[in-house]
Amino acid sequence: MSAPPPLFGGIEAGGTKWVCAVADAGGEILATHVLATTTPEETITGAVRFFQEHPALAAIGVGTFGPVDLRPGSPTYGHITVTPKPGWTHTDVVSPLRAALRVPVGLDTDVNSAALGEWRRGAGRGLGTLAYMTVGTGIGVGAVLNGRPAHGLLHPEFGHIRIPHDRTEDPFAGSCPFHGDCLEGLASGEAMRRRWGRRAEELDDPAAWELEAEYLAHAVTTLTYALSPERIVIGGGVAKRPGLLPRIRARAFDLAAGYPAIPALTDRSAMEEYVAGPSLGDHSGIAGAVELAMSGLA
Amino acid sequence: MSAPPPLFGGIEAGGTKWVCAVADAGGEILATHVLATTTPEETITGAVRFFQEHPALAAIGVGTFGPVDLRPGSPTYGHITVTPKPGWTHTDVVSPLRAALRVPVGLDTDVNSAALGEWRRGAGRGLGTLAYMTVGTGIGVGAVLNGRPAHGLLHPEFGHIRIPHDRTEDPFAGSCPFHGDCLEGLASGEAMRRRWGRRAEELDDPAAWELEAEYLAHAVTTLTYALSPERIVIGGGVAKRPGLLPRIRARAFDLAAGYPAIPALTDRSAMEEYVAGPSLGDHSGIAGAVELAMSGLA
Repeated sequence: MSAPPPLFGGIEAGGTKWVCAVADAGGEILATHVLATTTPEETITGAVRFFQEHPALAAIGVGTFGPVDLRPGSPTYGHITVTPKPGWTHTDVVSPLRAALRVPVGLDTDVNSAALGEWRRGAGRGLGTLAYMTVGTGIGVGAVLNGRPAHGLLHPEFGHIRIPHDRTEDPFAGSCPFHGDCLEGLASGEAMRRRWGRRAEELDDPAAWELEAEYLAHAVTTLTYALSPERIVIGGGVAKRPGLLPRIRARAFDLAAGYPAIPALTDRSAMEEYVAGPSLGDHSGIAGAVELAMSGLA
Repeated sequence: MSAPPPLFGGIEAGGTKWVCAVADAGGEILATHVLATTTPEETITGAVRFFQEHPALAAIGVGTFGPVDLRPGSPTYGHITVTPKPGWTHTDVVSPLRAALRVPVGLDTDVNSAALGEWRRGAGRGLGTLAYMTVGTGIGVGAVLNGRPAHGLLHPEFGHIRIPHDRTEDPFAGSCPFHGDCLEGLASGEAMRRRWGRRAEELDDPAAWELEAEYLAHAVTTLTYALSPERIVIGGGVAKRPGLLPRIRARAFDLAAGYPAIPALTDRSAMEEYVAGPSLGDHSGIAGAVELAMSGLA
């Protein structure tokens, strides 16, 4: 009797829920399991239990909320650093999984994992450099640069860039506990809820969405000038709003004023391909986590 | 008689002058030659003539002003795209050098070349990810990410990011012909000259330098959130102003408000190492151009 073919596990480790999946060597997802994010012990144990049902597991990949230490060789590698999420500050998410499952554990941020998923299997296939921005409760950006997830001293925290904020037009002071009116403080789902008094999903005021498009267009142009990606994928709950993506494109095109003379900034139809929704819908992150397991990219 | 040891050429191809150098295999510069940037033909011919005096030349590297097409395989690889510099739009800077000198030609932007120089031989030695910002007539950023110069669809044009601009405090509309008050439009040497009516070198008003530090501190925090570099080197003529670097550091520290909890943002003495002047002084760019010749990084 031959050994069963190897399986690869992925965890999309969010602050609200953990999505766990097992995939075959082709990346096809065979089983998933969703857990609420409670205490670190309970959550990690729940994930371990799911993966233990699949003895052919060869490796797992984790795309986690953060900030998280990604520096190979660091004594706190794989630890969440300081997070507002109660109980999770300084939690080691890698060692307990490795110890319980006895397989290699690949790790990256949730947004890099989503970028990786779209890059391998979605809207970024065949490109060298891709940025993925999620606009949900918070705002985060992951990127694949030169074919590798973007790391550095820690990892990008693009949600916290400052953008122009006209306080006459928008007197809201911003919702970021650190910076007030950074990008996340002005344009996240949480910022919208606090500015307008209702959740983004329930908000129909065209002025609200015009303002949202303005801020996210600044995110697009800053990403363009900072990273020069070949495509920007915008996902997350807030970004699902019908009509938002076209407004972001139109405004970003105007803001960039044709400079530099790349197709997306000089031809509105090229801009449509440049700023795209996620091909994998809500599955970019879990697809990327499975890729982290398969590719050894960490 | 054995062949002479190979030599490596570098060109720091600026809009005002071209600095040409020949170095030995250890990167030691043996001869330099400076040309005024006039017409493409005259300038390139002048460079060729200098390098022809060194028959042992094995390769040359060019760090050029831009925007420039860096995409390998592109039909316009090595061409300047659209530049305000008269006569240089669509100039091919690579083929004529290769044809005349019959050696491989490495290519990158002037700022990536400076980043590479500092990374190999200066303030970025041993780091994986480094950003180099030049603040002179214009503002540009080069970066080494995951050990490679940052490219992408074109290359970063970080000088054109938008930052907060308080028009009550600073009514100057900005000097960028494309964007008005982008970073370069607010904080370049040209912006200072137009706002204050005199060149940065001749400007002693403390308010002018306070404002300059404010804008460049925004550049530092945005670079941090966008690229997460391990160090940011700030060079260029304007950045030589005594006392400017400490003000930028202090203001960037305050703007970041301790998030994320990396040493540079939570410990003022770590910020001093994080934001540094160029170890190579004015030679970062030419050192990087020689590296482009030696390393085959293009």
